Amino acid sequence: MLKRWQRLVKSLHNKKFRYQEGLFLVEGEKSVVELLTPETNVQGIEVEALFYTPKFAQEYVKYLASFQKKVAYSEVVTQEILQSVGTLQTNDSILAVAHLPQNLPFDRADEMVLALADIRDPGNLGTIIRIADWYGINKMICSETTTDFYSPKVISASMGSFLRVRPYYCQLDNYLRENFSDSVYGAFLDGKNIYEEDFKAHGIIVIGNESNGISDEIAQYISHRITIPRFGKAESLNAAIATAIICDNWKRHILFHKSYQDRKR
Amino acid sequence: MLKRWQRLVKSLHNKKFRYQEGLFLVEGEKSVVELLTPETNVQGIEVEALFYTPKFAQEYVKYLASFQKKVAYSEVVTQEILQSVGTLQTNDSILAVAHLPQNLPFDRADEMVLALADIRDPGNLGTIIRIADWYGINKMICSETTTDFYSPKVISASMGSFLRVRPYYCQLDNYLRENFSDSVYGAFLDGKNIYEEDFKAHGIIVIGNESNGISDEIAQYISHRITIPRFGKAESLNAAIATAIICDNWKRHILFHKSYQDRKR
Repeated sequence: MLKRWQRLVKSLHNKKFRYQEGLFLVEGEKSVVELLTPETNVQGIEVEALFYTPKFAQEYVKYLASFQKKVAYSEVVTQEILQSVGTLQTNDSILAVAHLPQNLPFDRADEMVLALADIRDPGNLGTIIRIADWYGINKMICSETTTDFYSPKVISASMGSFLRVRPYYCQLDNYLRENFSDSVYGAFLDGKNIYEEDFKAHGIIVIGNESNGISDEIAQYISHRITIPRFGKAESLNAAIATAIICDNWKRHILFHKSYQDRKR
Repeated sequence: MLKRWQRLVKSLHNKKFRYQEGLFLVEGEKSVVELLTPETNVQGIEVEALFYTPKFAQEYVKYLASFQKKVAYSEVVTQEILQSVGTLQTNDSILAVAHLPQNLPFDRADEMVLALADIRDPGNLGTIIRIADWYGINKMICSETTTDFYSPKVISASMGSFLRVRPYYCQLDNYLRENFSDSVYGAFLDGKNIYEEDFKAHGIIVIGNESNGISDEIAQYISHRITIPRFGKAESLNAAIATAIICDNWKRHILFHKSYQDRKR
């Protein structure tokens, strides 16, 4: 592996260089294979370079030529080199350098989107991306204080779901003011029980900070204050866990509501 | 801090020494304060020693005498010492050495319990303990391959919920064979939609391994194969996320079923 590439890959551990170069790292067999497969890489994220071990070449021998056609540069490297330039502790077999999608606002009409108001932990963000993908949510508005979507830890924790969920980083309070919606959901201790909430199919689910929840600044744009009912004594739930439970209750409600409407016809 | 104590505290990072000494570590202000408060320490876990910074002593000046009465030994130490003997990277202010509860089987009649079949990641286990506590589940049967409940990472991630949830480590397949129940729930890809499952109030929810799910060995004792419906493209959900969604659907079902039964009367 050329020193130039080694320096580049290592520099992409760092947010500043990711945005300077317009590139980010994708590590791990599952994520990289999904990145190189059009059916799973639905946004069409482009790949600049691939570095893989002889073991990977052997296992994917049938696909290697088609993978290589998709990238500007590829090289077989030792597992030691791969580990020294990447961020994973485990025995990884492939690493891709991919092009950062542009940070453009998206049209969010007619669907549900997540808004992340200050999620700081990369593991939490990655898990939230995976949950969004599971529940068919493909857009995520992120406050500028939310940890970087394209950091290697987030990409790894998302287990390939970063390919189906698009972030848009902006000043979240401005965004919510300018994109008025009467279906903005946010969890608070004094909200309405989510089991009884008449969720709409379209709108925004706001997820607050891990320690402090949703700030007052953002809270003024929440039209529906909701609460996950508690049956025991834990003081709170982790932000990703709360996201999953809210998304599940939302989808479940839409499903039952739709089947109820269908029966009425 | 005496060298003897420093050595003991450091040794408790390690599972072997925790079980040899019959002691474990509780770190972090929230967890230790809950441990020292009878209302939150519902199992009555006993505390051997406390080490805290002058800052903690100042903040909890009103409670310090009552805290000290509960322990055999206590000492004010510098933040540097605390950090050097503990496992937390953050600026911690207190650490407790507590007595390991005995590993005794519990009577699980008339309630729902979790069974952890090979949960390996301490962060996941801690999060699952917190979820159990939120949903009022207080007992957890753990396979012997499940990571140690009393490891410092698990205790920290449980955010105090380790005080309300009791584990029992055993050979899980033997346990399930000997404690027959016709309400043993486990998630599989081909199970029944959890939105339509007629959950019972009492029984066992089995949570499988992070990568491989529930093994064939354990699967034979599952009476109800369930599935979390998927609406998007993520391949799977994290084990703790799946636990939360199953527990939420279970409690929700019991609640609505009960209110339906009450209305019928």
